[in-house]
Amino acid sequence: MFPTFTIQVPSSVIEGELQKKIDNKTKPLGSLGELERIAFQLGRIQNCVTPDVSKAKMIVFAADHGVVAQGISLFPQEVTPQMVMNFLMGGAAVSVFCEQHSVPLRVVDVGVNAELDEHPLLGARKVAFASKDFSQEAAMTAEQVEQAIQAGVEEVDLAIDDGVNLLMFGEMGIGNTCVSSCMMTALIGMNATDTTGRGTGLDKAGVSHKAHIIEQSLKRAEQATGQLMADWSAQTLAEQVGGFEILAMAGAMLQSAQRHTAFVVDGFICSVALLFAKKMAPHVTEYAVFAHQSNEKAHRILLDNLNAEPILSLDLRLGEGSGAILAYPLIQSSCVFLNRMASFESAGVAESK
Amino acid sequence: MFPTFTIQVPSSVIEGELQKKIDNKTKPLGSLGELERIAFQLGRIQNCVTPDVSKAKMIVFAADHGVVAQGISLFPQEVTPQMVMNFLMGGAAVSVFCEQHSVPLRVVDVGVNAELDEHPLLGARKVAFASKDFSQEAAMTAEQVEQAIQAGVEEVDLAIDDGVNLLMFGEMGIGNTCVSSCMMTALIGMNATDTTGRGTGLDKAGVSHKAHIIEQSLKRAEQATGQLMADWSAQTLAEQVGGFEILAMAGAMLQSAQRHTAFVVDGFICSVALLFAKKMAPHVTEYAVFAHQSNEKAHRILLDNLNAEPILSLDLRLGEGSGAILAYPLIQSSCVFLNRMASFESAGVAESK
Repeated sequence: MFPTFTIQVPSSVIEGELQKKIDNKTKPLGSLGELERIAFQLGRIQNCVTPDVSKAKMIVFAADHGVVAQGISLFPQEVTPQMVMNFLMGGAAVSVFCEQHSVPLRVVDVGVNAELDEHPLLGARKVAFASKDFSQEAAMTAEQVEQAIQAGVEEVDLAIDDGVNLLMFGEMGIGNTCVSSCMMTALIGMNATDTTGRGTGLDKAGVSHKAHIIEQSLKRAEQATGQLMADWSAQTLAEQVGGFEILAMAGAMLQSAQRHTAFVVDGFICSVALLFAKKMAPHVTEYAVFAHQSNEKAHRILLDNLNAEPILSLDLRLGEGSGAILAYPLIQSSCVFLNRMASFESAGVAESK
Repeated sequence: MFPTFTIQVPSSVIEGELQKKIDNKTKPLGSLGELERIAFQLGRIQNCVTPDVSKAKMIVFAADHGVVAQGISLFPQEVTPQMVMNFLMGGAAVSVFCEQHSVPLRVVDVGVNAELDEHPLLGARKVAFASKDFSQEAAMTAEQVEQAIQAGVEEVDLAIDDGVNLLMFGEMGIGNTCVSSCMMTALIGMNATDTTGRGTGLDKAGVSHKAHIIEQSLKRAEQATGQLMADWSAQTLAEQVGGFEILAMAGAMLQSAQRHTAFVVDGFICSVALLFAKKMAPHVTEYAVFAHQSNEKAHRILLDNLNAEPILSLDLRLGEGSGAILAYPLIQSSCVFLNRMASFESAGVAESK
């Protein structure tokens, strides 16, 4: 059965007390800008004036995509399992940044096109060896959609049961910017040329080819379903043009929100996962902290659609959750100022006239 | 005697090797964006492919300003020593963020208008009890300019002799956005209305009054010196409209650069200190890592003038070095990826086609 989620709007009861605490810190009113807004959001989510994100966890979902057969990525598909190994061995960007910030990293295989050896950091939840090539047929079955979403749910349950108070999600899957652009096109109803970007570094001809494959895939899917994509349910959309790791991330986000836990949205692909999650349960976005604005051109459009102002804009386009972990110390800082700074009264500092 | 500095352009010999190392990391080419540019800059400054910023230090320079008599700040002058105490007691924004990142904090009194008790974190280098009101007379004497700059130089020498490999500077001084706007006006030759902003939170009338005081002060100083401000030497400018903590920061930046050590530029006031330092020795800017774009409106103009793209844009307007310490984990991350990530070869990951 297609899963459903009950997501509550975060507490508004605490808002007055929270804002008062923020405003009484020894600083000019509002002068910590974005950090004040994050502190406020985390306080609402945790329903307290002492929000805590000290126990964070990074979960990277990995899968392969049949559509790479259409030549839409610069890198060959074997890079997905190679990068999974690189994550596990500690050599990838997300690995070294997680180590820098003492954040545990877990990699979850939901559809990598290779047998992966057991590893203490690896979650084995393979739904299939890659999705089908959605330019030719549906990406996956209804059962596979459910399995992928459920993988995210179960990973988040494990983390929260273990005391994690901030979740960060990342992804790995050669071809997944193409899948994301395709899902975004179907979700927002734009032209593929507007949602398609350079991915890992395509040239102009490569981007144009990718957009063409996306348009063709969506046409095929509209014919197969007998519906315009604007009328697709979340389930139909996922079956037709979904990706396992993207659906797993959506499930993880929905479960985080259902369990009143904030999560960090990395770049373009994670934002598409959130857009999909929002189609299933609109309030999920209230639990999202946006880490960074990616260099992938459609990300700005998507962030505007989500009414999001991310913390960082560092010209990143790496994925893996790298932007999320880079933003983590700043999210921590928002709690640090709220929990540890002196108030005007406690420090004996005169207030403004 | 007015100090001089000999600042070398950072190494270009290392550039090829550095770029090759950055490009061979297991990530799409250029995909770590701004972090790659910082890693490259730090490698050049330290003349190696393994730059290290793990031993950082924050130095906050504090002083008062006679021009506050003109009612240009929302906060009363006694807030300067009160905030110095707050820094020392660990309750200010910069204190809690330094603690978060295990960065030692030192506060240096170069002109606070109060007797301050000895404290292990306090550097006692008072030049005077506040500068003079520069709307009425020169802010300070030639000897005081030299003393203030020298205070910064000596603090940096202490730090570097102690093994510090990244310096961060902050400031505290009620009225110092006014002093900074005035110095910027004189240094760039703009209208005071373009360089004057809200400071700690002035309303429109307050900003307009502040700009008027700045214009009046610069007119007075042009008459007193018999020179147009465009023709002032750095020394004359500092005497007429300088601030002790701003000059101390400029001295600190110049000495960091002279000793081949990168330093982090906080917000608007620190950027004005750098602009002043650049007038004394243009290559100083090559050693500057720009932390954040302040909410103070003239900061964007100033950053463009310095050709700088800061790491963060969080709508901050707090000063104290708070933006610099918030950017520190990202500066560390630039070294972390360069030093710890696997290469395509070492990780056995296929490269792009």
